[in-house]
Amino acid sequence: MNYKYIRFILGAVLIICGMLMVLPCIVAVIYREREGLSLLISCAICLLIGFLCFNKKPTRTNIYTKDSLIAVALSWITLGLFGALPFFISGAIPNYIDALFETVSGFTTTGSSILQSVEDMPKCLLFWRSFTHWIGGMGILVFMLALLPMTGGYQMNLMKAESPGPKVGKLVPKVQSTAKMLYFIYIVMTVLQIVLLIIARMPVFDAVTIAFGSAGTGGFGVRNDSCGSYSSLQQMIIAVFILAFGVNFNVYFLILRGKISDALSSEEVRGYFTIVLGSVAIITLSLIFKDKDPVYALRDSFFTVASIITTTGFGTADFDKWPQIARTLLVCIMFVGACAGSTGGGMKVSRIMIMFKTVKKEIRHFLYSKNIEKIRFEKKIVEHEVIRSINVFVMAYLFIYVTSFLLISLDGKDFTTNFTAVAATINNIGPGLGEVGATGNFSSYSWLSKLVLIFDMLAGRLELFPILMLFVPKAWKKF
Amino acid sequence: MNYKYIRFILGAVLIICGMLMVLPCIVAVIYREREGLSLLISCAICLLIGFLCFNKKPTRTNIYTKDSLIAVALSWITLGLFGALPFFISGAIPNYIDALFETVSGFTTTGSSILQSVEDMPKCLLFWRSFTHWIGGMGILVFMLALLPMTGGYQMNLMKAESPGPKVGKLVPKVQSTAKMLYFIYIVMTVLQIVLLIIARMPVFDAVTIAFGSAGTGGFGVRNDSCGSYSSLQQMIIAVFILAFGVNFNVYFLILRGKISDALSSEEVRGYFTIVLGSVAIITLSLIFKDKDPVYALRDSFFTVASIITTTGFGTADFDKWPQIARTLLVCIMFVGACAGSTGGGMKVSRIMIMFKTVKKEIRHFLYSKNIEKIRFEKKIVEHEVIRSINVFVMAYLFIYVTSFLLISLDGKDFTTNFTAVAATINNIGPGLGEVGATGNFSSYSWLSKLVLIFDMLAGRLELFPILMLFVPKAWKKF
Repeated sequence: MNYKYIRFILGAVLIICGMLMVLPCIVAVIYREREGLSLLISCAICLLIGFLCFNKKPTRTNIYTKDSLIAVALSWITLGLFGALPFFISGAIPNYIDALFETVSGFTTTGSSILQSVEDMPKCLLFWRSFTHWIGGMGILVFMLALLPMTGGYQMNLMKAESPGPKVGKLVPKVQSTAKMLYFIYIVMTVLQIVLLIIARMPVFDAVTIAFGSAGTGGFGVRNDSCGSYSSLQQMIIAVFILAFGVNFNVYFLILRGKISDALSSEEVRGYFTIVLGSVAIITLSLIFKDKDPVYALRDSFFTVASIITTTGFGTADFDKWPQIARTLLVCIMFVGACAGSTGGGMKVSRIMIMFKTVKKEIRHFLYSKNIEKIRFEKKIVEHEVIRSINVFVMAYLFIYVTSFLLISLDGKDFTTNFTAVAATINNIGPGLGEVGATGNFSSYSWLSKLVLIFDMLAGRLELFPILMLFVPKAWKKF
Repeated sequence: MNYKYIRFILGAVLIICGMLMVLPCIVAVIYREREGLSLLISCAICLLIGFLCFNKKPTRTNIYTKDSLIAVALSWITLGLFGALPFFISGAIPNYIDALFETVSGFTTTGSSILQSVEDMPKCLLFWRSFTHWIGGMGILVFMLALLPMTGGYQMNLMKAESPGPKVGKLVPKVQSTAKMLYFIYIVMTVLQIVLLIIARMPVFDAVTIAFGSAGTGGFGVRNDSCGSYSSLQQMIIAVFILAFGVNFNVYFLILRGKISDALSSEEVRGYFTIVLGSVAIITLSLIFKDKDPVYALRDSFFTVASIITTTGFGTADFDKWPQIARTLLVCIMFVGACAGSTGGGMKVSRIMIMFKTVKKEIRHFLYSKNIEKIRFEKKIVEHEVIRSINVFVMAYLFIYVTSFLLISLDGKDFTTNFTAVAATINNIGPGLGEVGATGNFSSYSWLSKLVLIFDMLAGRLELFPILMLFVPKAWKKF
């Protein structure tokens, strides 16, 4: 492994992290909160260690895929470890494991919380908490690539390892331009949401933090009832933006280039909206059947489906009390997740669609054994390599799932809570059912279970392999 | 599709089914039960319709894979429909859907029951119920192949479609000899278990029916507490035989041929016993930790693990009340299942092991990108075709699982009950957790859910594809 290269990347990540901490410091000044000091200290620590690591550029440029994978995994762990400092130093979260859980949950855009009451937190820390979603949504390394002009062919590997979906395309030939383009779309959409929410009379602080949570499809709110106390109009704006952030960003890129018809014909986006509409219809019916007012039923089910399928995790209603079919359907779409190339988590719509096509193809293969038909997705033939990687992804996903499920069941909580706790973290959603449902939180798990769930959040965000690579002793061998 | 060929096969299956019904008729005579009449009527119906269909041999011999798959699927559905007649005609199970559920559960060696109290049933029907396990365990078509000398290359397809595991090998060059050999081992082991149980002072009726349930890894008992009231010695005999029936029958064939060292080096069998021992150890510890007597803890956990991993489903203890880690572990090994080429269900140890190796290989691939290492299992290179079929199996499995889970959740039962009800039927186990736990049953589900679960049992027993084929309109096209 190229240790010098890794140190260099980690240094850059820490410097960016420290610089980003300036923003919540400003918030602390505005609200005159003394917790701003803990942010300032953390900022200083990040910058100091960052510059020490970043100082010496690596001389050797032979970077292998495994180095990139490990660099990405370690970057995210570093982010979590240092991003947790403000919570810990200020004493707002006195237990460091809890602070780490909250921060990793933020950066991975999961939104699972160990806090009993968010309204007791100082505003500057709440801002930092929501800001981690925004940073994590598009990816810190994509951000780094947008800023740093790097040479060598390894930037693409970094971007691949951090971006979600079965395959990552470059939007434009140069990696740096792609990264810049992605962040441009991301910033414009976030600002648009903030403006619309303010027009809909939401307080500015709420509008900004909720927009951060929506953009990253994270789910940390700033009220104890998440989004329950906002007006119907505000809730609808949030839901629409959440859904929009769950769309493959390539589509927006195509729209920017004026290729509207290409954008509309995206198979994944169509599949995504079909699942959303189908789920909303079924859940609304089940709620009406249970004597709920149709308008409220539609509003709540639309918001909840948008929040769950994009793996955001904002809540307006306690869906743990909904009919069983609604609860089960929500658990199922937890696994589907948003589109590839969006900020959402889960297994991704395109993976599910290609999996489905694989099964269909196999059945056709029994019918006409001489048929060697190819699977097509988005009008292109799906390469054998992509299908294989999806298959392996599903296997690895199942193994991590089962192992985590077993480990956290040592705590003795019930089956539903454990099952959905793993689902909510590995898919980067936030809330599950039972004790970790919309009105519960993760604080009562043991420290061991919390570490397991932190692992799951990171594995889910980085799509398994970078994190699994850390456990291969040979990957650490110096050469 | 070759309709004449299918009619011919179904005729043969019905004749065999009718002939097998003679055995419970004899039981009725011994116990002087008037329900024997319903068995006699059912027997006559099967033979009559069977001979009508079997009468004309098909002239065309062009049989495709899809015809074999459909023939196998329809044979099993026919078995269920006609096998349910004795229960329905006698009035022992007044609802035909319930009778069908019970019979399909029998033939597929699932062992899920809708009966509140088995002790109220007449002995001849209890005998038939357990006998369906024995018939279904090794497979009715394998039985047919052992009896009928058939020409053409299509017997192997029938056997492949009915036998469990990622790939089916012929033990000896001729299909008929392989089928005979399998039934020979099967009968010898069943008789041995009956003798041992009788020596251990179990009543003859119980010994025979329990041996049928063990051999087929089915799980229907003849007492309301399943195996709870048998002595520890009797329970241990049952557990050891259950585990033995979950071993790949190729191993016994090798032992018969004197190739002991080959038999002992089977990777799958080693994996299987490793999982069994590991699970027993963990569950025993969790029970001791909960202040259970170590001896009883070991006995109950050994019996339960054997019963669940082989997908038998006999019970001695109410594991639904065990610690959460034990319950979760049991749910996990429900999916693992027994060895390929055994009478057990589930996904099969070999599939899981190959899946695991695929993930390991992929990670190594990241490390040394030029490495094109092959996966080895049982000292042979695993063909690409086998890996692909396992991948597709897992995908299809997940789709059926999710769809069934959603459909039965319409009944409004809790998450754990629904989740494990599908797990228990698609893996052909029997009991789940919650309402369908060791002391519960499936009777309170709606008829729709029962049909879904019947589908799952058949899909699980036939390893998905034959049953899925029924839903492809093109497969029914006459040519």
